Amino acid sequence: MISKETVEIVKNFRDDRNWSQFHNPKDLAISLNLEASELLEIFQWSGCDLNCEDKLDKIKEELADVLCYSILMADRCGLDMDEIIRNKMQRNAEKYPVEAAYGNKDKYTELKNKL
Amino acid sequence: MISKETVEIVKNFRDDRNWSQFHNPKDLAISLNLEASELLEIFQWSGCDLNCEDKLDKIKEELADVLCYSILMADRCGLDMDEIIRNKMQRNAEKYPVEAAYGNKDKYTELKNKL
Amino acid sequence: MISKETVEIVKNFRDDRNWSQFHNPKDLAISLNLEASELLEIFQWSGCDLNCEDKLDKIKEELADVLCYSILMADRCGLDMDEIIRNKMQRNAEKYPVEAAYGNKDKYTELKNKL
Amino acid sequence: MISKETVEIVKNFRDDRNWSQFHNPKDLAISLNLEASELLEIFQWSGCDLNCEDKLDKIKEELADVLCYSILMADRCGLDMDEIIRNKMQRNAEKYPVEAAYGNKDKYTELKNKL
Repeated sequence: MISKETVEIVKNFRDDRNWSQFHNPKDLAISLNLEASELLEIFQWSGCDLNCEDKLDKIKEELADVLCYSILMADRCGLDMDEIIRNKMQRNAEKYPVEAAYGNKDKYTELKNKL
Repeated sequence: MISKETVEIVKNFRDDRNWSQFHNPKDLAISLNLEASELLEIFQWSGCDLNCEDKLDKIKEELADVLCYSILMADRCGLDMDEIIRNKMQRNAEKYPVEAAYGNKDKYTELKNKL
Repeated sequence: MISKETVEIVKNFRDDRNWSQFHNPKDLAISLNLEASELLEIFQWSGCDLNCEDKLDKIKEELADVLCYSILMADRCGLDMDEIIRNKMQRNAEKYPVEAAYGNKDKYTELKNKL
Repeated sequence: MISKETVEIVKNFRDDRNWSQFHNPKDLAISLNLEASELLEIFQWSGCDLNCEDKLDKIKEELADVLCYSILMADRCGLDMDEIIRNKMQRNAEKYPVEAAYGNKDKYTELKNKL
């Protein structure tokens, strides 16, 4: 979970530095992509798993950055994270009905053809 | 905030479909990047702002996807989202001291040269 | 243009280091994304233009990295860059007919609705 | 290789549609990232290799898109692709000397520590 207090810490960090002026949605979306990319870099030329403590430490840092920018994006756009996740999960449940998607990694566009 | 209940909804969605077997950290990092990219696509050839309702609806969907994969990544790696965000905010506070970073969008590597 | 000699330089760089063993298509695709992201980072929190020499120097470096990985990906997959570009341009010409797309930045899925 | 004629085809496609007005470097960098991401999507939840013809067909399309935006970015910034690739290869040769990098996938920052 991400508590209200954690969200406040992230917003206060931004406000203490007067950075809200830079945080337009387009540049926040760019920043979120850059952090997601740093998370991905941990797995460049590597296996799929967490085979060392060093890898996990890096994941903690980069995943935290992704979450911070997600929090800032939600705040800038006036979105409730709980609400948008639950709404999306409902739509996903329609796109990926259990009977068709069980143990199946196909995209919903391909799943449809199989039903 | 993201409540425990919302985290459970996301994890249950995965488990109901028996998808945990596909969710290795490398492919989760790839998926997170793909969703971040779909969020960015909303701003391709566009201004920086939220000038229409349609744009906001798309942001809700794509930001939700980014958050879902972040939750799944944290779960797969056994990470506490609150904890990793707070730890990262502490390190960021050291990299971006208020006096140097106030109203300044320079990266910390450049900030250092100015202190 | 990218000459045959330049392509050879890139392939020789790889072969001199015996790196071909690491260059599977999935990790090359990841690497290409990481370099594209470094190119994008130049524009984080910035305007759209090339307002300083420093920015252009960075673009040279990062765009070169994107091109190198594109060359390596094409080589690994046995693809002729000239051929795949020309074929794609033909398909794009069908998706974006001049009369509909002239001075119009809509995606082809939206263009269709307007014809 | 990418011939002068192929570069002309890409530039003419843009000019026939009067799209140069949209092609500022920031949005071109975003577009290049979106296409790199579509290339990566081919490998989501998949093995590292080219195990089917369908996969190769998609790679042709998405790698072509990456190359087209690279050509357009180079053109917009007045860059010679041959030149920037060769210059970067020279710098990389210094960062990755053959004796240290042979058969070794470490990043240059780690290679240094081993010399």
